[in-house]
Amino acid sequence: MLPRGRPRALGAATLLLLLLLVVGFFLFGRDPEYGLRAAATFDGDPYGSRNRSASGLHPPLPPKCELLHVAIVCAGHNSSREVITLVKSVLFYRKNPLHLHLVTDAVARNILETLFRTWMVPALVIRFYDAEELKPLISWIPNTHYSGLYGLMKLVLPSILPLSLARVIVLDTDVTFSSDIAELWALFAHFSGVILLWLDRLRQTGWEQMWTLMAKRELLTLTATSLADQDVFNAVIKEHPELVHPLPCVWNVQLSDHTLAERCYLEAADLKVIHWNSPKKLRVKNKHAEFFRNLHLTFLGYDGKLLRRELFGCPNQLPPGAEQLQQALAQLDEEEPCFEFRQQQLTVHRVHITFLPHQPPPPRPHDVTLVAQLSMDRLQMLEALCRHWSGPMSLALYLTDADAQQFLHFVETSPVLSARKDVAYHIVYRDGPLYPVNQLRNVALAQALTPYVFLSDIDFLPAYSLYDYLRASIEQLELGSRPRKAALVVPAFETLHYRFSFPNSKAELLTLLDAGSLHIFRYHEWPQGHAPTAYAHWREAQAPYQVQWAADYEPYVVVPRDCPRYDPRFVGFGWNKVAHIIELDAQEYELLVLPEAFSIHLPHAPSLDISRFRSSPAYRDCLQALKEEFHQDLSRRYGAAALKYLTALQQSQSRA
Amino acid sequence: MLPRGRPRALGAATLLLLLLLVVGFFLFGRDPEYGLRAAATFDGDPYGSRNRSASGLHPPLPPKCELLHVAIVCAGHNSSREVITLVKSVLFYRKNPLHLHLVTDAVARNILETLFRTWMVPALVIRFYDAEELKPLISWIPNTHYSGLYGLMKLVLPSILPLSLARVIVLDTDVTFSSDIAELWALFAHFSGVILLWLDRLRQTGWEQMWTLMAKRELLTLTATSLADQDVFNAVIKEHPELVHPLPCVWNVQLSDHTLAERCYLEAADLKVIHWNSPKKLRVKNKHAEFFRNLHLTFLGYDGKLLRRELFGCPNQLPPGAEQLQQALAQLDEEEPCFEFRQQQLTVHRVHITFLPHQPPPPRPHDVTLVAQLSMDRLQMLEALCRHWSGPMSLALYLTDADAQQFLHFVETSPVLSARKDVAYHIVYRDGPLYPVNQLRNVALAQALTPYVFLSDIDFLPAYSLYDYLRASIEQLELGSRPRKAALVVPAFETLHYRFSFPNSKAELLTLLDAGSLHIFRYHEWPQGHAPTAYAHWREAQAPYQVQWAADYEPYVVVPRDCPRYDPRFVGFGWNKVAHIIELDAQEYELLVLPEAFSIHLPHAPSLDISRFRSSPAYRDCLQALKEEFHQDLSRRYGAAALKYLTALQQSQSRA
Repeated sequence: MLPRGRPRALGAATLLLLLLLVVGFFLFGRDPEYGLRAAATFDGDPYGSRNRSASGLHPPLPPKCELLHVAIVCAGHNSSREVITLVKSVLFYRKNPLHLHLVTDAVARNILETLFRTWMVPALVIRFYDAEELKPLISWIPNTHYSGLYGLMKLVLPSILPLSLARVIVLDTDVTFSSDIAELWALFAHFSGVILLWLDRLRQTGWEQMWTLMAKRELLTLTATSLADQDVFNAVIKEHPELVHPLPCVWNVQLSDHTLAERCYLEAADLKVIHWNSPKKLRVKNKHAEFFRNLHLTFLGYDGKLLRRELFGCPNQLPPGAEQLQQALAQLDEEEPCFEFRQQQLTVHRVHITFLPHQPPPPRPHDVTLVAQLSMDRLQMLEALCRHWSGPMSLALYLTDADAQQFLHFVETSPVLSARKDVAYHIVYRDGPLYPVNQLRNVALAQALTPYVFLSDIDFLPAYSLYDYLRASIEQLELGSRPRKAALVVPAFETLHYRFSFPNSKAELLTLLDAGSLHIFRYHEWPQGHAPTAYAHWREAQAPYQVQWAADYEPYVVVPRDCPRYDPRFVGFGWNKVAHIIELDAQEYELLVLPEAFSIHLPHAPSLDISRFRSSPAYRDCLQALKEEFHQDLSRRYGAAALKYLTALQQSQSRA
Repeated sequence: MLPRGRPRALGAATLLLLLLLVVGFFLFGRDPEYGLRAAATFDGDPYGSRNRSASGLHPPLPPKCELLHVAIVCAGHNSSREVITLVKSVLFYRKNPLHLHLVTDAVARNILETLFRTWMVPALVIRFYDAEELKPLISWIPNTHYSGLYGLMKLVLPSILPLSLARVIVLDTDVTFSSDIAELWALFAHFSGVILLWLDRLRQTGWEQMWTLMAKRELLTLTATSLADQDVFNAVIKEHPELVHPLPCVWNVQLSDHTLAERCYLEAADLKVIHWNSPKKLRVKNKHAEFFRNLHLTFLGYDGKLLRRELFGCPNQLPPGAEQLQQALAQLDEEEPCFEFRQQQLTVHRVHITFLPHQPPPPRPHDVTLVAQLSMDRLQMLEALCRHWSGPMSLALYLTDADAQQFLHFVETSPVLSARKDVAYHIVYRDGPLYPVNQLRNVALAQALTPYVFLSDIDFLPAYSLYDYLRASIEQLELGSRPRKAALVVPAFETLHYRFSFPNSKAELLTLLDAGSLHIFRYHEWPQGHAPTAYAHWREAQAPYQVQWAADYEPYVVVPRDCPRYDPRFVGFGWNKVAHIIELDAQEYELLVLPEAFSIHLPHAPSLDISRFRSSPAYRDCLQALKEEFHQDLSRRYGAAALKYLTALQQSQSRA
């Protein structure tokens, strides 16, 4: 129910929208086999015949730069994933600029805002609308479950969409396009007469009154205990059939176990839209399900980056930041030896935060989130990590779109992983040859929701007690109220053996160390990385002790969530953590080693990227260039205080 | 020059085809900026305007079940890869049955025959034509390089394509479609008049005479040292412009550094075909190259399996074997606990043999090919394997289409791998959740071209001397002429350490073994797997010695190439090699252990699939069911002789 006293113009616009909303709904509502639909005909061309000799019957497509409007209601983690596949299929075939009007809850908005900002699709405008605002307009209607409320929002979309919006296509999230959405938009032309008629009539009656009346009557006379949006639409349509213009069946090929849709698609040349409106979704038993599944899977695994295509000849399409990015990329010199590094640094990766359902941890003042990043080849670490760390985790995964689907399946089939709702998985989509390790760390760090973070790596397993011990230490050390900021160092060890019995205590760890089954992490290859932790002292330590920064130090640390970010210039392998520890030291973080904390690196075959680059002199030269630029930046930011890092670097290089 | 005395009908059909060939050529020839093309117009609609109100100008699309014919000349490994991306883009948008006429050399035919047979795309007919037969018709024309000869074959295609073929679209391999090929086919309609005219005239003149005359004149008057197909076409067209009907520019958007194509696509709503006719291909510098690259990459990484879609409502589309396969799959019970195994066993994977350029080994009577299989997570083993094994290898790789592109890049950037032309890589495309280990082994085994094969696994490194030693042993033992077939056993060891210095001799190996740095392979977890090799005896052995089969024995062996295949029912992990050794024993292969041969397993993290299933009781139950079925088959095939395997199985199970 719209607030009274809104201007007449709003009413008119609302009704206009609503008409189209009804059409949209009629296409994409949830009711699988609504009577009218089976009989749908369209200008005597029920199957969308492709014979263009008869194409005078087809309405003209909109001009190529005309902006088309699409509205979608989307709430929660799962719908947010679903809607992306829908949007990919629309973008793949579209040739017009698009404006997406997304009515979202807070979860979906958080996810989709990040996604579309990083997706950077030209000629695509996104606007968000708060579903909370619509709730009062429909919450009086009893309905069976939470998502039903979001379904009902289609009834009141007009009250939230802008007045200037004359037409909109309303889509459910479980739809896959296999044609240009402009063809659907073109069907609006057939309504021109109807729209006028509709307006004339509705200026007297009003849609709100109409549907609320119907809804109330249904509730009264049918003793319904709940109403879905479709029920309300059906009631209105039954009463006012003249409001409805049926669409060709190809625009809503519905898949359920016993669909009548076969009558449609066996005759049709073109299927335009597939509607996965069975609860079984892709597993539906339909003898042609394979065909439809393949269309859907096409976009499920489709590399969204490839949809960053401009529409030629239409003005002002670029999303925010895209022009600067294009210019920066254009200025790179392809012949420069470190071109791959420069390009990778500039790459904006699509980011899908909280890819799976996630419950944020309750606010607790000393809580710690484990932060790490990984790619497909480390998935098998996740279960062990969950067993070792019982607290919240924020993990960035560097995956292709297809990998992400495999990852989803992996989690769903793992009892250990699917039981954990406090692990947030953030997908950063692959783009480019170098692993963007620090960009990944920053994504995971930005999404950590506790006051403290444990900055770890995926191939380390923390001591079983570490989560509890860290929280206790943070509390005891009063980390939040110290005069200087502090970073707690978790000593790192490694085993070279696959079959390995994880120590249950520091005492057990020391025994293994003495037996040669465990080593200080990278003690033989890169001792300076952890030497400042002073392992000999740690053996005997009963209390936290302070250590000093030294060149190439890269301990694993626990820091407040608002710690400095990782330097994203370090892509690929090498020096990415070292630079971060320098940053902490430059910002005068105290380094405190915890006497009972430890974490153990498990062996793994060298990753493909490491193997590829470890032996390359060009790679090492580029890493050196990155280090130097990093130090120049340090000097700019910290002045004379940064001198010690440069001196240390030079000394360490002259030794090497 | 066609043989004299061919019937007149052939001449007529030839000319008809040729006309269409000229059209095809005109679309897809190699000359980047041919004059006529820039001025191409089409019924006053130069840009393929999408405004369908003017669509009376568009010819009607062919009826939905009309068969469209496409001819492609394709030779060698690289073109065979290229053509697949072209075919994927055509299949993605097509809605008609297609007939591909492929003119191939022996290499491309071998690759593409396997690929299309295993791809099993409905409504796609493939016919091969031997390029060798065409060579005499054009080899008199001087041209600069090998591939030029294949280019010239377009001139004489009519002499090889069937008489019944009235029209054909001729495509270059470096083309990507972004529209339905039926729209191109429809343009033939505009030629109806021209075709008749053409026929009338050509019945007197003859195309063969015409083009050979032109070619000879060019060679004489222009003192040309070589002619490409395009040169001949240009000469004919210059003389007979009336033979040419230009197509809208959207049907040949050519990409080169300074293309004029922008004039076309900035105005056009639809691009129909992208032509990568710059030698720089995807790396071309064009300010809109990103757009085109994305279209191309879409199909490069596209899962070809998703193109196994039927065309609804058209009869008789299924490729050979597809119907039986569908029936077998339909008979599976989804609720059965081993459903995933059954489904995986039935899966027909697309196979792309010799994915990269490959030189078959010269015929040598005692030569041995190393046979193994891997997926993406073991790529980093390849360089080490190449260093250890200097002989031919046949490797099956289980990859997605996107992985295959990454693999290609990996090999191209590895000096070690790109230097080896005696390693054949066969891509088996991923499909389904279980690793089809034995199907992969069979693909690699079938493609081994030497008389003997060493059946290894990818995570083993052979002794540096093994290749030479095996060939010498085969010769000394006169393996080819023994009364009983023999399998030579290569003893297997393992290291649990990452950093590991590979022994240069048996003596060094024994030292490491005694020091505990090396172990007999799986000695602690699965001793029965290798116990019959009799390692204690091997330590002292100076000559090959015979050993007897025992339950669960799974040594790595060298056998003649015609050895029994692996049993493809074993998918996932477990018992896949055991069953093969039983088969060898049942066929009375002698098992001879070689005293100086060894191979060492390197450590690696458990693969995702192993981790997923190792802990699953349901998985183990299914493996048990597979074992039992295998034994039933053995009894059927070998009768009472197979009893010992069943007894051994039962004994080993009662012990466990």
